[in-house]
Amino acid sequence: MSRPAGGPAGPHPEARLSRAAAGRLSLYLRRLEEFRKRGAVKVSSGQLAGALGLSDAQVRRDLACLGGLGHPGVGYVTGELIATIRQRLGLDRDWSVALVGVGNLARALLRYQGFRQQGFQVRALFDNNPAVIGQVVEGIPVRPLAELRPAVAAVRAELGVITVPSEAAQAVADELAGAGIRGILNFAPVVLRLPERVSLVTVDLTVQLEQLAFLVQVGSD
Amino acid sequence: MSRPAGGPAGPHPEARLSRAAAGRLSLYLRRLEEFRKRGAVKVSSGQLAGALGLSDAQVRRDLACLGGLGHPGVGYVTGELIATIRQRLGLDRDWSVALVGVGNLARALLRYQGFRQQGFQVRALFDNNPAVIGQVVEGIPVRPLAELRPAVAAVRAELGVITVPSEAAQAVADELAGAGIRGILNFAPVVLRLPERVSLVTVDLTVQLEQLAFLVQVGSD
Repeated sequence: MSRPAGGPAGPHPEARLSRAAAGRLSLYLRRLEEFRKRGAVKVSSGQLAGALGLSDAQVRRDLACLGGLGHPGVGYVTGELIATIRQRLGLDRDWSVALVGVGNLARALLRYQGFRQQGFQVRALFDNNPAVIGQVVEGIPVRPLAELRPAVAAVRAELGVITVPSEAAQAVADELAGAGIRGILNFAPVVLRLPERVSLVTVDLTVQLEQLAFLVQVGSD
Repeated sequence: MSRPAGGPAGPHPEARLSRAAAGRLSLYLRRLEEFRKRGAVKVSSGQLAGALGLSDAQVRRDLACLGGLGHPGVGYVTGELIATIRQRLGLDRDWSVALVGVGNLARALLRYQGFRQQGFQVRALFDNNPAVIGQVVEGIPVRPLAELRPAVAAVRAELGVITVPSEAAQAVADELAGAGIRGILNFAPVVLRLPERVSLVTVDLTVQLEQLAFLVQVGSD
């Protein structure tokens, strides 16, 4: 649902963001940080649109939801826009993260610079494989699953990442929810059932590859 | 753009699918395969909707685009629906895949059962690290980047997967495009520039985690 048009004060800075709009703000943030790294003090909606393959109108609409940040004839001040988006997305703080299932995918995620740069700090690792328990990965010791609840409390983890095989994912999700985790990023290709108070984002890598196959096929029709 | 309503034959089986609708078909496919594994010969739109957190109306609309597959009072025949979705998404055939950048993420992807099950066959691996070149990973030898063009041609790869660091991604994408690849799944958090004939799906894992943080924050407002 879009907000009713024509309110007296225009789009309110606290207007509800859709999930899709929040996703686009993430993408703007990534590009804005690149622009800033290259020394761009100002940026236009057209530059952002061009870098992301979106329409200028879409970018303007999304950024209007953040409040009156655009300066006519100037564009946006890069640093100001970055700070506002980070605040709006809940990235103006650190998030403590617990990760369960320390295989190749987890090791790739732990080395992924982007997580740390955006304030996601993995502070606890868990696995049920005796060969993996006790290993120290990127400075963090791998604990047995039996220690999940006290360890999650000790590091005050709010987000959980699930990188275990499908058949183990629901039990791990239950444990994380029981430990007080507020959101789960799930890489197992299963639908998890969670209490309403726990948010869920599932990354199904096969769906992404299927989407690509579909685009290639449509392109050749 | 949606199709004009009221055509004489109702939704045509070849009606254009949006990218979002194609993504949902992938999700239906995943659930339908689970239902079939459990022995469900028939399935209702309500069951699919419930399993995915979508509305019944949304599921019916999406499946109507596939042609008249629903049987009143019965629902859908699981096997028939699976075959039709696979055909529509371009999954009724094998896709030969080349992957560049054989680190932890690549190794996780190579072990990922879902890819092979859906017909995605990784047939060539490339890296520029002398310590990795010559290794055999999941039965496939890792070749130097210099061999990319002839090797892509030899295995008739149509899709490419990029799991190299950001700063190397554009050069690798150029090589893949030059080798005749038709679609790229990119895991590097950069915007790639590709010729129009090459389709692109980018998986930005930080965006997914940021989306989760946003949902958690909104939930606690």
